[in-house]
Amino acid sequence: MSEYYYSPHSPDDGRIVIVGPEARHISLVMRHRPGDRVTVVDGAGNEYGVELVTTHPTRVVGRVVFAAKGRREPQHQLTLAMAVLKGDRLALACEQATELGISRFIPLRTERTIGRLSGVRLERLRAVALAAMKSCARAVLPIIEPPHDIARLITRMAEFDQALVAYEEEECKTGLGDVLDSRIRSLLLVVGPEGGFTPEEVQVLKSAGVSPFSLGPRRLRAETAATAVVSSALQLLGDLGGQSVRQDAMKGGANEAWSVLP
Amino acid sequence: MSEYYYSPHSPDDGRIVIVGPEARHISLVMRHRPGDRVTVVDGAGNEYGVELVTTHPTRVVGRVVFAAKGRREPQHQLTLAMAVLKGDRLALACEQATELGISRFIPLRTERTIGRLSGVRLERLRAVALAAMKSCARAVLPIIEPPHDIARLITRMAEFDQALVAYEEEECKTGLGDVLDSRIRSLLLVVGPEGGFTPEEVQVLKSAGVSPFSLGPRRLRAETAATAVVSSALQLLGDLGGQSVRQDAMKGGANEAWSVLP
Repeated sequence: MSEYYYSPHSPDDGRIVIVGPEARHISLVMRHRPGDRVTVVDGAGNEYGVELVTTHPTRVVGRVVFAAKGRREPQHQLTLAMAVLKGDRLALACEQATELGISRFIPLRTERTIGRLSGVRLERLRAVALAAMKSCARAVLPIIEPPHDIARLITRMAEFDQALVAYEEEECKTGLGDVLDSRIRSLLLVVGPEGGFTPEEVQVLKSAGVSPFSLGPRRLRAETAATAVVSSALQLLGDLGGQSVRQDAMKGGANEAWSVLP
Repeated sequence: MSEYYYSPHSPDDGRIVIVGPEARHISLVMRHRPGDRVTVVDGAGNEYGVELVTTHPTRVVGRVVFAAKGRREPQHQLTLAMAVLKGDRLALACEQATELGISRFIPLRTERTIGRLSGVRLERLRAVALAAMKSCARAVLPIIEPPHDIARLITRMAEFDQALVAYEEEECKTGLGDVLDSRIRSLLLVVGPEGGFTPEEVQVLKSAGVSPFSLGPRRLRAETAATAVVSSALQLLGDLGGQSVRQDAMKGGANEAWSVLP
């Protein structure tokens, strides 16, 4: 049962019906037959062990053998908001962030954004996220939102326990580990375009409660910054193997380390 | 002085000579003229402020105005050893790791490695590392080594203060933050191919003192794993902005947290 398939439909009466490209993939590409067992995820966090009953290129029906909450999902809800990039690099960032464990992706229009996100490119991002969800055996399909500008992004702050922005000015000496609060459950991570946010944009973000942090003195491409930020946040929160580093510190008695947190 | 150029030659008598593609780039593409100031790095950690004296498409001569040790380099020497991948994905991993701050890259041949690293592909990796070094304003050009197999890799353990391998078996509950020793100066990070290392390969690595750690329950593409491992290690060591998280814990008095370190 190593293959993961996607069906956005909930099982009805212990049966799950798969249509569209996934039905075709199961029956024609993978050549599954009735009696085979596969894993189906619904993209909303549920995972089903399914025994196939009928396999037709347009419609596959299976019997649910077991259901579970996605066992490979992180404990934290991460949203990545990043400036639109040219070419395939936005899709790359979306793919890597999906594998790592984000649950929401918000493309940003900023002053210095060069690329434009057409409807076609937006659909392509959704396809990339779907493929990445399956390849990494996740049960949550990240929601790919339509492009936001900064003004719209800050209207959504109430959805997140904490919001942080990677800031590339050299005077910023605060690292992600200095500002990230491990007690949170939901986190917004904001990454700017290649030329960075304008000082005005940073001011708007700060005023809305988004805390800046530095990724250090090296200039990172935007997609590298995005993957580094998501990896580092999940690592610090204990959602990339092992325990939360800050939780470890807590256990060790370092309550003083918390004094820097808001 | 925002452009970074590369010359592997040390300045002689306060003058630096740039030849080859960089000379062409400076004089024809960027159209620099005598009197312009640029930054030149030697790839070995030195950075020079240079006033151009003559600009010819095959030979540019400049006067060194100041010299400094690379101010954007991490405090730790990271080596990434990763299994060869097909297509452009190895180059992508090499590019992102260079931007983040590695100083050495070792392509690995493993049992389950699919791609082959020809001489042409190896030269392409070196070109990618050079371009990434310049774009991220580093002064160290990572050394791209010829392919190693596991047997050869483990002969080199004495070069590293610590060596760690990302291991994808589910029984591994140890995270990177649990095993990484922040007192080290040099670190080898090993990442396997898409199908993972064989149990025998992991045994050989362990016997040579390479400690396994988990990246969590989601299956990552090898290049995503490589970028996540390099980001997380630099983050935990305080080399990706801010302070070492473990050092913070130390300051907070959590000496107990150290008891898990070897």
